[in-house]
Amino acid sequence: MKINFKKACFGILFISICNLSIAQKVNTEDSLMLRNLYDMALLNGNSYDWLDTLSNKIGGRLSGSVEAEQAVRFTKEELEKLGFDKVWLQPVMVPKWTRGFKEYAFIESGEGEETVTTDICALGGSVATSEIGLKAEVIEVQGIEDLERYGRDQIEGKIVFYNRPMKANLIHTFEAYGGCVDQRYAGAMEAAKFGAVGVIVRSMNLKNDDFPHTGSMTYGDTPIKDRIPACAISTNGADYLSSTLKIQPDLQFYFKQSCKVYPDVQSHNVIAEITGSQYPNKYMVVGGHLDSWDLGDGSHDDGAGCVQSMEVLRLLKLTNYKPKHSIRVVLFMNEENGLRGGTEYAEQAKLKNEQHVFALESDSGGFTPRGFSFDTNEANFKQVLSWKALFKPYLIHYFEMGGSGADIGPLKDDNIVLAGLRPDSQRYFDYHHAASDTFDAVNKRELELGAATMASLVYLFDKYGTKTSLDPVKN
Amino acid sequence: MKINFKKACFGILFISICNLSIAQKVNTEDSLMLRNLYDMALLNGNSYDWLDTLSNKIGGRLSGSVEAEQAVRFTKEELEKLGFDKVWLQPVMVPKWTRGFKEYAFIESGEGEETVTTDICALGGSVATSEIGLKAEVIEVQGIEDLERYGRDQIEGKIVFYNRPMKANLIHTFEAYGGCVDQRYAGAMEAAKFGAVGVIVRSMNLKNDDFPHTGSMTYGDTPIKDRIPACAISTNGADYLSSTLKIQPDLQFYFKQSCKVYPDVQSHNVIAEITGSQYPNKYMVVGGHLDSWDLGDGSHDDGAGCVQSMEVLRLLKLTNYKPKHSIRVVLFMNEENGLRGGTEYAEQAKLKNEQHVFALESDSGGFTPRGFSFDTNEANFKQVLSWKALFKPYLIHYFEMGGSGADIGPLKDDNIVLAGLRPDSQRYFDYHHAASDTFDAVNKRELELGAATMASLVYLFDKYGTKTSLDPVKN
Repeated sequence: MKINFKKACFGILFISICNLSIAQKVNTEDSLMLRNLYDMALLNGNSYDWLDTLSNKIGGRLSGSVEAEQAVRFTKEELEKLGFDKVWLQPVMVPKWTRGFKEYAFIESGEGEETVTTDICALGGSVATSEIGLKAEVIEVQGIEDLERYGRDQIEGKIVFYNRPMKANLIHTFEAYGGCVDQRYAGAMEAAKFGAVGVIVRSMNLKNDDFPHTGSMTYGDTPIKDRIPACAISTNGADYLSSTLKIQPDLQFYFKQSCKVYPDVQSHNVIAEITGSQYPNKYMVVGGHLDSWDLGDGSHDDGAGCVQSMEVLRLLKLTNYKPKHSIRVVLFMNEENGLRGGTEYAEQAKLKNEQHVFALESDSGGFTPRGFSFDTNEANFKQVLSWKALFKPYLIHYFEMGGSGADIGPLKDDNIVLAGLRPDSQRYFDYHHAASDTFDAVNKRELELGAATMASLVYLFDKYGTKTSLDPVKN
Repeated sequence: MKINFKKACFGILFISICNLSIAQKVNTEDSLMLRNLYDMALLNGNSYDWLDTLSNKIGGRLSGSVEAEQAVRFTKEELEKLGFDKVWLQPVMVPKWTRGFKEYAFIESGEGEETVTTDICALGGSVATSEIGLKAEVIEVQGIEDLERYGRDQIEGKIVFYNRPMKANLIHTFEAYGGCVDQRYAGAMEAAKFGAVGVIVRSMNLKNDDFPHTGSMTYGDTPIKDRIPACAISTNGADYLSSTLKIQPDLQFYFKQSCKVYPDVQSHNVIAEITGSQYPNKYMVVGGHLDSWDLGDGSHDDGAGCVQSMEVLRLLKLTNYKPKHSIRVVLFMNEENGLRGGTEYAEQAKLKNEQHVFALESDSGGFTPRGFSFDTNEANFKQVLSWKALFKPYLIHYFEMGGSGADIGPLKDDNIVLAGLRPDSQRYFDYHHAASDTFDAVNKRELELGAATMASLVYLFDKYGTKTSLDPVKN
């Protein structure tokens, strides 16, 4: 694209006039504050540098790993440098599961004459195979509900291959994920009931590539001796396996994984606070989760959310804004395979009788922000809608009721505002839980725009306060 | 991010209910048609495969090159396969400028003791240096307006280094581009008036990296003997040069480029048409430009716009929709360095008295679509706003007056609707006119969403018609 720069200048003038006419409808002080927050994030932001360290110097941060503890130390030190009122670590016991040696798998067809290796990874929490690995025939299903249909006769002794893909025509990719993830989470537990010896799950990825995507799974109450190993296979691998099964239904699948569960270990949530000037005992939280899966460096999930949350407090401080409420950044430990950090934070808040009125999580990747979803009462949501025009110059348009974030979920009550940043989601599952989730996949501007958008919402809720469910609903 | 899938299911239900309530406000037939267009684009699209060929089998398609002619042939053949009413080539004479050997540059400081090579590329249309290259001292300026201030005394015999960066705090990156591109377009012409011997321009890129970004430039009426060579330097290179100049103001910059202008050659716009059922003599155009710069493979600029435009006609045909107006896809030749294709198309339309009522261009990259900007009368724009709810399920929210596209600009009159697809722009200038503009930087889903969004707008304008400036404005 080429731009005629006379036309471009006219365009700028036009946009300025439009922005002015929007500004006339909104509070000028708020409008200037948002402009200030965006300017600082884009011109003088720190989130990208923090992410560089978290991703490139520390790397994947699975709960209980050395890297997770390095991340705790690094973020605490960085928060201390910023001169907030308090910075501390909140102890939390977390599960420790390790992947062990890199997994190995192949497809053996044509009476053992041909083997083709394929890309897999153990699901988080899976047991290992035996030391010599596991080899068995494969039965392909489109979901847990197929198990009943095939029955023990056709499943026993086999590896169940869950191959229901994410629906590509859903615009909200998290909806497509929600429609598949039961295969990963409960697939092994359910298949074991029919005598399966192992489970392969198609990666939760909308793209055709060679990356297997890990993620949490459960065995529920399955006795330890009956637990079967479970792995994810890349989307390309899944398509290859499926098409080969059509030609050779009796092919054998071999895989070996050496993952292991250890006793729980102590880790920490990292917390910093700017104490409120008017309501020091009312708390507003902004956060992400500091742990990540181990295959990539956890840049999008959820290094981005952590550094954006740190940046929110930094931006508010840089503007010399004195919050009325106490505002905390909380970097939660162990979202991925236990939610222990989020659970502990909420329990401690309850024990200490800390009244939390607002919590915002960023845990959907560091892509261009589009808006927020909310889990709150109608009065609060209506208040949010009254701020839409303030966000328009920043192309923030999505304000909907819906989910918020896993870590802040345990804080839920009738009056709190729970919110989740909603970035563009089209590429998120290309990286989610895979080796492709690396620093180079995060764009600096997009990350910074997210931080400024979050800071803007925190500012508005701090300034105007939150509503209880008994407050009148303004239209 | 992990998802509790029970909550996810609830979320889906919630979203479905919301969509339903939107649907009640909009025409159901239209709503279903849009859903159909998006489904087909995402589940059964062809745009990404076409782009694969255009980018990976053909590559950069500078006007007058063999690749540009291969692209003409390939797209014509593909359009012929789709069984439209007419497919043809429209001849157009285009400039032919070639880059020649790869450019070479170094910075020589400390009395010739140290040289550091740096990444440059010739600007499109620049003259070559002499065969032994050009070496001279450098004067750094922040824009054309600085030339007057320094004057001939300080400029004569030197290379002018335009180093005003794009403003990072502008949300619309095209606005940031518009604020800098005069340096590239007119910098050499203006510097020559003060006796400069060459020009280096900071790449129009918001990211710090090593890619020089080319683009068009003009010498205006400067006599051939007075034309000075002009190159772009990468953003990293520009920062290095600038900081070195502060230490060594008398450093020398060397560059060599062997670009050349040839006589104009014949090329073609590629056109396909579905003839209208009610108004065969009223035309609606959807298009992009088939030429690209030569450094990358032109995937975002503007392979994406071409394959999306082809896909619009394909999608409309697949739905069995019978357009009332004649709908054409036009793949314009020579947008980048001449706009000859767009100019010729409009001239021929005038000569043949073809009434064009609507034209839509996609030339802002293949990123997640956000909406459209329009250049039209108030009645048409008001009509567009009445369709906003139809687009909401697809997160299409941006409907503003503003520019459209360079190629369709020459069609402008009082009554035509000119529109430009507006995708997310945050990463566009990372790739624009640089070697980084390659196929792997385009996401399949994002490309397909753009095509469906374009097809939806074309469908609505075809069905409801366009307004003349004399029509009443509905509110």
